[in-house]
Amino acid sequence: MNNFTINLEREDRKIPLYEQIYLFICNEIKSGRLKADEKLPSKRSLAAHLMISLNTVETAYSMLLQEGYIYSAPRSGYYVSRAFVEFSLPEKEPPIEPPASETRTSETRFKYGFLTNTVDTSSFPFKTWAKLGKEVLYSGQSLLSIGDPSGDVTLRESLCKYLREFRAVDCSPSQIVIGAGIEYLLMLLNRIIPHELTFAVEDPGYGKTRAVLLGGRRKLSYIPLDHEGMSPSCLSASGADIAYITPSCQFPTGIIMPVARRLELISWANEYEYRYIIEDDYNSEFNLMGKPIPSLQGMDSDKVIYMSTFSRSLAPSIRIAYMVLPKVLLKDTRDMLSSYSSTVSRFEQNTLARFIDGGYLNRHINRMKTLYRRRKEFFLEYLKPYLEALDITVSGDTAGLHLLLTMPKALAEEVYRRAEANKIKLYRLSEFYAEESDRGRNTLLLGFAGTEKEDLKNAVDLLFGNLQSGPI
Amino acid sequence: MNNFTINLEREDRKIPLYEQIYLFICNEIKSGRLKADEKLPSKRSLAAHLMISLNTVETAYSMLLQEGYIYSAPRSGYYVSRAFVEFSLPEKEPPIEPPASETRTSETRFKYGFLTNTVDTSSFPFKTWAKLGKEVLYSGQSLLSIGDPSGDVTLRESLCKYLREFRAVDCSPSQIVIGAGIEYLLMLLNRIIPHELTFAVEDPGYGKTRAVLLGGRRKLSYIPLDHEGMSPSCLSASGADIAYITPSCQFPTGIIMPVARRLELISWANEYEYRYIIEDDYNSEFNLMGKPIPSLQGMDSDKVIYMSTFSRSLAPSIRIAYMVLPKVLLKDTRDMLSSYSSTVSRFEQNTLARFIDGGYLNRHINRMKTLYRRRKEFFLEYLKPYLEALDITVSGDTAGLHLLLTMPKALAEEVYRRAEANKIKLYRLSEFYAEESDRGRNTLLLGFAGTEKEDLKNAVDLLFGNLQSGPI
Repeated sequence: MNNFTINLEREDRKIPLYEQIYLFICNEIKSGRLKADEKLPSKRSLAAHLMISLNTVETAYSMLLQEGYIYSAPRSGYYVSRAFVEFSLPEKEPPIEPPASETRTSETRFKYGFLTNTVDTSSFPFKTWAKLGKEVLYSGQSLLSIGDPSGDVTLRESLCKYLREFRAVDCSPSQIVIGAGIEYLLMLLNRIIPHELTFAVEDPGYGKTRAVLLGGRRKLSYIPLDHEGMSPSCLSASGADIAYITPSCQFPTGIIMPVARRLELISWANEYEYRYIIEDDYNSEFNLMGKPIPSLQGMDSDKVIYMSTFSRSLAPSIRIAYMVLPKVLLKDTRDMLSSYSSTVSRFEQNTLARFIDGGYLNRHINRMKTLYRRRKEFFLEYLKPYLEALDITVSGDTAGLHLLLTMPKALAEEVYRRAEANKIKLYRLSEFYAEESDRGRNTLLLGFAGTEKEDLKNAVDLLFGNLQSGPI
Repeated sequence: MNNFTINLEREDRKIPLYEQIYLFICNEIKSGRLKADEKLPSKRSLAAHLMISLNTVETAYSMLLQEGYIYSAPRSGYYVSRAFVEFSLPEKEPPIEPPASETRTSETRFKYGFLTNTVDTSSFPFKTWAKLGKEVLYSGQSLLSIGDPSGDVTLRESLCKYLREFRAVDCSPSQIVIGAGIEYLLMLLNRIIPHELTFAVEDPGYGKTRAVLLGGRRKLSYIPLDHEGMSPSCLSASGADIAYITPSCQFPTGIIMPVARRLELISWANEYEYRYIIEDDYNSEFNLMGKPIPSLQGMDSDKVIYMSTFSRSLAPSIRIAYMVLPKVLLKDTRDMLSSYSSTVSRFEQNTLARFIDGGYLNRHINRMKTLYRRRKEFFLEYLKPYLEALDITVSGDTAGLHLLLTMPKALAEEVYRRAEANKIKLYRLSEFYAEESDRGRNTLLLGFAGTEKEDLKNAVDLLFGNLQSGPI
């Protein structure tokens, strides 16, 4: 090959000249027009031929060299690589079209959503959050470097004080691990706790917990609930050694675990050194009846792994959760975490630390509690005539941000059918059992945190209007 | 019990009155002064006795009820729970003090850090990032609700365009999964890819990859490298079916995989339906020699899982990484992800989307490339007299942001000793092998991305000053 004649786009060019040359030669090689071991024109001659600078050709050739399309022989020149030609790409079927299910937002699927994983977004303290975020961003360059895999110590210190004061959690900052969501922290816990131990989970319970643990190949026991929460006799009989519970507000039943049951579970955990209770305090701050219920962790900080999240107290889209580990697990955890990086942006960690330290979190939570309490009262009030007329009983309304409505079976089926027909999202209690069956099909679950009054009214009317009690 | 005499703090009180009453009664029960089934004073009588409102006593009693310290008997009153008294907390050893190893920042441990996981932080576009972040925050409430577990479609669309243009990655937004770091995405991949398949990893290679996969109980094969990267014959012989490689810039050797080797590995992957190559493109944008090397994914998008991160192109503290999955894996992935939540804040996802769409990312990368290229040239120039005098050879300097210096063994030991004595952080190549041995002990690895010129000079002088070649 004496020289290439390349149609270079010289003016107003989108692709730099060196890249045009590189692409041309690549294509000549790939198409087989340039054969293995064929000599390329010298850099100098090609530059002269194309009337471009030597530099430009040098860049193109060095890219070809780097990627192995050509090789150089000392004092001789550049040649097409033989190795390249020996392998060619396999023939392929045309690619499968990606499923068209993708929507831009998941919210559009429902007209009214009685979701359990949502908050009232109109009250978010945008101004404060923006102000603090800006302060953090301008606080210096140190927040750009890689952080502690357990989370920034500033946030862990803020959390520690906050948890002590508001949740009676007994810990030091070194016991806290911050992560992007409870699911992620569970994935870590699954790696910290010996694989041969079985986890006991509440049944009914939170489906994501089950799925995340099963995805980590963890053995699970499903423990039924009685009116006080996870049944200790069933737990003992199960052979499980790690109990995952939601004592402040059992999800989804809303049961608050009484103190005696708490002590009983703590006794169970103390029977063996390797036993632990995981306390998922997802609803921690939102006991609408008064002061938050003190954490289980505060009763035995050596046996309880405490977990919570800011999904409810701030917003589900801000991915900050945390766990508090017993001291005896710290060494193994730290050894493990040295191979992981924190999953939360240091900017957001520090914004949150300032938000907590400045008292904004507490103020926000109090405002939200008032709002949710009023919303719940309104919801119950608006439901009242229907409840009485249709023989519906309400439960779970003490602590949580959803109601459970239990009703005659035929009525539940009709209401559920209406929900589907009117694009109203609600849940059946049966969905939360490990094995879906008829259990709980006549109990409907309606979250009210994210639904405005007008929507509540409209949805309730659509669900229950013009229904009669008794067989339909 | 007729009535309690409680010393209430009535003025300037830190604890609300209802909580003071609650706490008093709790303590009476816990201490045993109030016995099981003992009757509490009626709400009305206690309110009168303490001269407080009935409402206050009602709140305190309802908290005690909620938590199970007391029970109520219809038309009779409130009694101390029997159940509570049956369980008492186990006696405990005093808790172990947490290890004192905790420091506020990890950076303080070194005077000079030739780290490989850092960036030049002085060039971060704070102003633009702050401006875009604020725009996002004020763009509406919709970003507060829970997002798509694969990541926001806005960011996936931006990434898709960006990857097409700059990395020759062939994909649609639906193939992208966004997550808080490569480690997290690997944890997900480990759950997507059947557990019985063995992963092949580069040896030497990135330690965190190995640790994260082993932590997920994945079987690993360690595949040696030749001068073109992972050896295909060793890969074939290993029995592994998933090859994890860093073809654009092998970590830590800096080898750029030639196109023939790429094709050979793709042929290997095409031998069986379940085989895949994971392309970790951590250094994607920073080929300092010119245009980035096109991705392996672009050569066979059905067989390559592409992963990359913004740790290098923005900052390691902003936890945004992504993977591009072959279409055939999408259904299983989406089914699985329905039980997970995204690990990246939607605020930051959307800030990044605007940063990419506005062309800021590309501009920033180009600026950083120039800066790093100059820094590398300066580094090499400043090292030059030492290299020549001490018989040190440089490698890995084509694509990456670190240099490998290979030298006589005794010299390497002396330089490493000096590094430790002077608190200079550098690495030995031997640390990156699956099994640490003498291999690579005479090759030192120095990252230069985060080190300013003056520091480079000082550290190089401390490491190599007044040394002589030959036996020391």
